[in-house]
Order: sequence, then C-alpha cells, then structure tokens
Amino acid sequence: MSLPNHFELTATDHGARTGKLTTPHGIVRTPAFMPVGTAGAMKGMHWREVRDAGADIVLGNTYHLMLRPGAERIAALGGLQKFTGWNGPMLTDSGGFQVMSLADLRKVSENAVTFRSHIDGAKVELSPERSIEVQLLLGSDIAMQMDECVRLPAERADIERAMQLSLRWGERSRRAFETAPDGAMLFGIAQGGDVPELRRVSARGIVDTGFHGYAIGGLAVGEPQAVMLAMIEEVAPFLPADRPRYLMGVGTPEDILEAVTRGIDMFDCVMPTRNGRHGVAFTRYGQINLRNARHADDPRPLDEESTWPAARSYARAYLHHLVKSGETLGAMLLSEINIAYYQDLMRGMREAIARGTFESFREHTRESWARGDIALR
Amino acid sequence: MSLPNHFELTATDHGARTGKLTTPHGIVRTPAFMPVGTAGAMKGMHWREVRDAGADIVLGNTYHLMLRPGAERIAALGGLQKFTGWNGPMLTDSGGFQVMSLADLRKVSENAVTFRSHIDGAKVELSPERSIEVQLLLGSDIAMQMDECVRLPAERADIERAMQLSLRWGERSRRAFETAPDGAMLFGIAQGGDVPELRRVSARGIVDTGFHGYAIGGLAVGEPQAVMLAMIEEVAPFLPADRPRYLMGVGTPEDILEAVTRGIDMFDCVMPTRNGRHGVAFTRYGQINLRNARHADDPRPLDEESTWPAARSYARAYLHHLVKSGETLGAMLLSEINIAYYQDLMRGMREAIARGTFESFREHTRESWARGDIALR
Repeated sequence: MSLPNHFELTATDHGARTGKLTTPHGIVRTPAFMPVGTAGAMKGMHWREVRDAGADIVLGNTYHLMLRPGAERIAALGGLQKFTGWNGPMLTDSGGFQVMSLADLRKVSENAVTFRSHIDGAKVELSPERSIEVQLLLGSDIAMQMDECVRLPAERADIERAMQLSLRWGERSRRAFETAPDGAMLFGIAQGGDVPELRRVSARGIVDTGFHGYAIGGLAVGEPQAVMLAMIEEVAPFLPADRPRYLMGVGTPEDILEAVTRGIDMFDCVMPTRNGRHGVAFTRYGQINLRNARHADDPRPLDEESTWPAARSYARAYLHHLVKSGETLGAMLLSEINIAYYQDLMRGMREAIARGTFESFREHTRESWARGDIALR
Repeated sequence: MSLPNHFELTATDHGARTGKLTTPHGIVRTPAFMPVGTAGAMKGMHWREVRDAGADIVLGNTYHLMLRPGAERIAALGGLQKFTGWNGPMLTDSGGFQVMSLADLRKVSENAVTFRSHIDGAKVELSPERSIEVQLLLGSDIAMQMDECVRLPAERADIERAMQLSLRWGERSRRAFETAPDGAMLFGIAQGGDVPELRRVSARGIVDTGFHGYAIGGLAVGEPQAVMLAMIEEVAPFLPADRPRYLMGVGTPEDILEAVTRGIDMFDCVMPTRNGRHGVAFTRYGQINLRNARHADDPRPLDEESTWPAARSYARAYLHHLVKSGETLGAMLLSEINIAYYQDLMRGMREAIARGTFESFREHTRESWARGDIALR
C-alpha cells in the first residue's frame, strides 16, 4: 500500500524542481539544505540564528543522540524539537552511517549492526527496528531507513552485498514504521556505490517497497563529482516524480547546484559549519580562507551585498584576527555566515526555478564562483 | 592640575554609590560590571548579546591586543570599537598584569618591563609611555596607568618596591596621557598588597598625582575575601568621593556585593565567561554545576524568573547534555546566562541604591544565594 504523500511540487524548470514538504513541525521549501545539528546542537550557532539564516529543517544524528543523552531520555523530555528548542522540522538519519565511521568493533549481520560506543565503550546493537524506534522516540519528522553504506572505492561484490542488505533493511524499516504518528515520514535510501547497474536495482527496489520520499546514499564518500552526478542520473528516472528526493551528505555549493539541476530536492552536510570552524567562508566569490595574511589589514567585509549581517558588517581584518587567535567568535561568525550563504543559494535556486530562469541563475552563480574573491586593495 | 571629572554621583546609600560615567562612546551606569573581551572578542558570545545582557562597557586586554593583531593595525582600522563592532565604551588595562602572568622571561626595570611574547617569542618592551600610547591607539575610553602587581602572599619589601615603582609609573602614565583626545580618561591604581600602611601610602600617592578615576589593583590574587575587603576599607577614605572607583579583576557575585557596600563603582572579571565554559551557571540560587548528573533528566529551566531568555527557556537536561558533550553551544549559553546574571545583579544594586533600599537588597540577595539551588523533583 502506498504511503501518503506530503510533498507538493510547485514548479519545474528543465530537470530542476521546487516544492513544499509538509511535516508535523512545519513546511520545508525545496530545494532545501538541512544544517547538521549532530548531537542536538549546531556547532557554534544558536538555533535562532539557524532559523534566521533561512533554514526550514535541520538534521539530527541518531547515532550520537542514542548514545548521549539517549533516545528514551529525549522522549521523556518531550522529543528532540522541545529538548533542543529548535521547534521546527527535523530529519534524523538511521545511525548506520555513523556506526560505520565512528564506532569501534562494529560487526554487520543480517539482523543488525553491533558496535562499541565511541563515548564509553558500551556494546550496542542497532537493527532496522531499533533504528526506527529510536528515531520515533526522538520525534523525528522524517526518519531514514537503516542501510549499509560502503566507502568508495570498493569491490563490486561488497557494494552489491551492502545494497541488497539495505533493501531488506528498508523493508524491515518500513514495517517498523507502521506505528509512527500521522504526518511523520520515512525515506528509503538507494545504495549501489559507483556501479550504475546496482544503483538501478537499488532504486527499483526501494520504490517497490514504497516510502514517503527517496534518498540517494553512499555518495560524497570520496568519489569524483562526475561519478556522483552520473549516479544521480542513473537513479532519478526510477524515482516517482511526485515524491521528495534527498541526496545524503552533499555537499559543496557546486555539488548542490549540479544536483538540483538533476532533480534533487534536499541536502545535508556538515561542511558549512566545519569549514567555518577552520576559518573558511563560503561566499558568492567562492571559498575564502580567512587565515590568509592578505586579510590582516583589510577593512572590507566578506561580501557587502550579502543578506546576512555578519558577512556585511565585520571587517575581513577582524575575522582574520579571530581565526588566527583561535577565538570562539571566529568559528561562530563563520559558521553562521556559511549557513546563511547556503540558505541564500537555496533561496536563489527556488526563486529561479519558480520563475523558469534556473539555467541563467546557474550560469551566473558559476561565473561568480569562478571569478574568485575581490582583488587586494 | 586636576583632570576634568566625567563622573556624576546620583545617589548614595550608606557606603554604596550609584552614578553615571560619561565616556566618548557612551554612558556607563554604576555600579558597573565590565565583561572581559580579552583579545577583541568575548569568548562564546556575540557583541550584541553582551549589549542585550545589559553591559554598558567592556574591558580589552592591552597585552593581548598589542601582540596580536597589534595596536598600530587596530588604529589603522579605526580603533577597537570599530574593529570589533562593539561600538560602546571600552576600558583597557595597561598590559602590566598580563605580562606578569603570561609572558616568558619578563624583567622589570625602572624604565619598563621587557618580556617575550607568549605567541611567537618576540622580545617586547612595555614602558608606561608605550602602554599609554598603545591604549590610545586602541581608542580606549578609559586607560589604566601602568603598574606592577605582586601576587600574594609576598614579602613586605617586594610589595613596597612594586608599590613605589607603580607610583612613579603612574606619574609617567599621566604625563604620557596629555596627548589623549578630549573625554578619554586615565585611572590611577592603588597597590600595596595586603599591607594596610602601604595601601594608604599608595592611595595618597595616586590622588596626589591626580587621575580621572581611581582603581584598586593587586587584589583577588589569592588572598581571603576578608583581606580584600579590609584593603578596600583602607584605601577608600583617601579617594575623592566625586571620582569613580574601580576594583580590578573582581570577582564573584559575593565579592562584588561586598565591595559595592564599601563604595566601589566598577568591576571586571573573566569569571562569568570562564565558569560558563566549564559548565557552571551563576543564578539567584548561587552557582550551579551543570555537569552534575542530577540535571540529566530535569526539564526545568535554570531560573524561570530570570530576565534572560536562555536561563528561562532551556531545560537543565539540555544544558547538562551540551556541557557533557562538549558542545560549543553549552559554553555559549552559559556564558551569556552568566554575563546576564552579573548585569542583573548590578542593575538590582543600582536601583536599590537609588531607592535607598540597598541594605535590604543585599540581605535578600545573600539569603537567596545561601538557600541554594531548587530541590530535586
């Protein structure tokens, strides 16, 4: 039986799409970028700043939250939205990806993955059923099926085994999700690494199972951008046009622009906040490294035409000083500047798609990045 | 010749005083607490939050700023207020205290202190004349004379030598300050450690030299509170009643309350932000350690009657989680909560002094601290 559809596609422009996804905690305008609040916090930002920057939805990491403070505890405190004060739509991942990248002594079986917590060494088992239970305890608006993600490059046999396991875990995830409250959604995930045939098998499989929306996983894990885009092109034709499409863990502004061109609606990535903590700003001019001594005496702002106050008002010299001095405020300002830039990019794409001018928006945006930063004074 | 007076004493209540200090960047209501923005940033806070919390004035550290990014650079960028975006009154210390506590290979002579930068090992000389020059380059509203501060306990002879040197450096600081712009102020500093007689000699000496305001230095460096209060009582009678009085580097809310009782008008301390970074909140109930497991499941806010939103709205369980997880947001929220509590305490004292009810305010505040945190649920 088909799951109800909460997505409304309002316009398309060639391959690009814009729409609205209605969740229990509010509406998400797509294409949407979801900032990542790993352990119930956005690193270096207040939740009000995430909201002010234009984010409709954020992502929480099931792996981190189930280990600390614990899903049952968060449920008892009213769910993740109330606990954190974000109070808006929230997508949670299944926990599977972080188990692979962070936990010790992990072991994948047909039934579940077992691992030791990277926090206290406790032995934990995560099955598709437990993953869904945890995500529902957290109060997720959009839960993800449990899957196994293979880091590339990998052998075809390994990619295929993980992809087939992910299909079976997807079916179990969907069954476990039957107890979910009205309006909550479950997304399936297409795997298959960099093998076109396996991507097609996976896409057909998850659509057969049937989800509220569909994700493409296992990309942005080390492969060239061209491979990532080719895999999107393999998968997209199999996905129902009326359902939201989410490219997991992507990416740079360039990646996102190209993926929207190919029909993707949702994204998440730690890059804006992580790069911000390392002194790098995302701007219309591309990435700017504030550690560079060229900024030490520069009174100009990062971008005087930015919609975000901190990008307009603080001198590059001040940001350079904060970064060089290791002041928390440097990470705070660059994180919010970067999240705001990403949201501004999404807004620009949404408006261009609605107006039917996406192709010229795309060209203009790429030219601006390619032109590079403003010249030295 | 007497320096112009920019302080207006508007009310006294027994020993406690309230007034207004007019600086080139705005008015400071006293008693005032100055949050410390060491290197041109308040750790974990946006400047707008410092302002919103009720701070009229902040402190910048000359030692840090002269080493990085450099006083001449900040001057070229328009001064510290413009550079940082704080844009309000700012007091700078002389740099002497931090040289003693942070720099390597320091050597004090009659002329100056020489040291190696803790950042890059560069050899630097700081004389009273250079300290004033640096403070004026920074655009300080209130500069401090250069002094030598001795850590207690210390031999009387050492205390006396440093006190006498500080008197001579005070005279040189005042001469160097003659080029300062109109409205900028210079404060003298009484030293003398924990020796009443030396404190009196120092107080008479700085008043003879003549400054816009008077500070008491060299306290809160390891001595018991009773000794600190006794030294304030030694010095205060010698200070002109119409000039502002600043107790440097103090302190806990209890210290501040007692010092205001004894006629002090201004304070600075890193404690609210530093303790915030270590998971400790200042509240009406005293200090609360959010690391404590008792908070892990507690949905109640720190203080539902607080004037500061974050102290009212976030669950103790969430703050506990952020602190335990090492999330930056934990330090950010507790820093702003603590700065807001300090400012709230100052506002309460100002209003009580103006109404002539300071003694009952003091008793009520002390009882509330002594009662301790609210009970477990």
